[in-house]
Amino acid sequence: MRVIVPFDGETPKTRLGPVLDQRERRQFARAMLNDVLRAVRGAGGTPLVLAPAPFDLPQTRVCVDDRRLSTAVNAQLQSGPMETAVVMADLPLVTPQALERLFDAPGDVVLAYGTGGGTNALVSRHPGFRVDYHDGSYHDHLANAGDIDATVSEVDSYGLAHDIDEPGDLSDLLVRGDGTAAAWLRHHGFTVDETSDRATLQRPDAPHPERGRSD
Amino acid sequence: MRVIVPFDGETPKTRLGPVLDQRERRQFARAMLNDVLRAVRGAGGTPLVLAPAPFDLPQTRVCVDDRRLSTAVNAQLQSGPMETAVVMADLPLVTPQALERLFDAPGDVVLAYGTGGGTNALVSRHPGFRVDYHDGSYHDHLANAGDIDATVSEVDSYGLAHDIDEPGDLSDLLVRGDGTAAAWLRHHGFTVDETSDRATLQRPDAPHPERGRSD
Repeated sequence: MRVIVPFDGETPKTRLGPVLDQRERRQFARAMLNDVLRAVRGAGGTPLVLAPAPFDLPQTRVCVDDRRLSTAVNAQLQSGPMETAVVMADLPLVTPQALERLFDAPGDVVLAYGTGGGTNALVSRHPGFRVDYHDGSYHDHLANAGDIDATVSEVDSYGLAHDIDEPGDLSDLLVRGDGTAAAWLRHHGFTVDETSDRATLQRPDAPHPERGRSD
Repeated sequence: MRVIVPFDGETPKTRLGPVLDQRERRQFARAMLNDVLRAVRGAGGTPLVLAPAPFDLPQTRVCVDDRRLSTAVNAQLQSGPMETAVVMADLPLVTPQALERLFDAPGDVVLAYGTGGGTNALVSRHPGFRVDYHDGSYHDHLANAGDIDATVSEVDSYGLAHDIDEPGDLSDLLVRGDGTAAAWLRHHGFTVDETSDRATLQRPDAPHPERGRSD
């Protein structure tokens, strides 16, 4: 299955600014992308990275479209094979097994919920389905599918739900992750304290955020 | 399958104190328990509620054991049928389908990850497996299973992972929930703002927390 993976290599993950400077955010976002692409391939998918600007990514097809995310994704949905998946690039806990469930789920539209109300992954098999990745997109994607009488199924996966946007999202990645992004965090000094009620993020040698590295 | 559901009806969910007083926390915890029991029965399980003190729960077997949680659960695991599930009572987004996946997963021990490093649900089919619900229990349950040469499988479910402990956990319940607990929150004035990057909790008529209701 063709799997569109939107990725912003220039200014990714700005909400991680309190704990990572811009250069680190770029590196970390690439590490997460790497984990997602490995899971996509492990599930038998063919990734197509959709980026607003060219960047180097070995052995992966990159399509550049500098329009806003929803417009760029919808342009892809309207070209190429009708059955297409869209999987976000900030899901470092996703597994090939979860993506197999996504790809194999029945229905004209398959949706995977994202923490906070978003849509972290979907499959469209209906020519009329369009995405709209504004805030709280999950409810609207359900409604969009209903408007075109598309059948919908939902995939219940923690790895698909847990996107990485804010510093608080990193703890579970450190606890659970065994891929490139988790290794990147550990290599850069992040640890979790599992002796409290809920694992909390720690970085003893934390640099001053946004300390103005030129990159 | 026998499904142990530990539940503290007296002082539940203390970390929700900033947004719910004690009486509200008791009501809300009962609403979450109701959702979990319904899902357990929907998946064909037979719930056994394990509580530190007697309380009234129609048409459900309640076993009272005032020892600490792990001790009480292990006492149950050592009696009755060898195949037993343990499902936490604060998982209002759990579905019968997720529990069917838990019950049907292969292995001597089946584990479902809980946000922050915990173990929100498990199945034990090995007479030597013991639980230890201290902080960060997931890693230790994996290790415990390894120590007794038990085979392990893991279930990837957002509904099983998303336990409700802190005020920040309520947003996704309001966005996604369609059961008793979500209805209770809405009835008590909670809403979510889905116009921000991530849905955030709102309660315009919030009472002063811990305002000392006698209950």
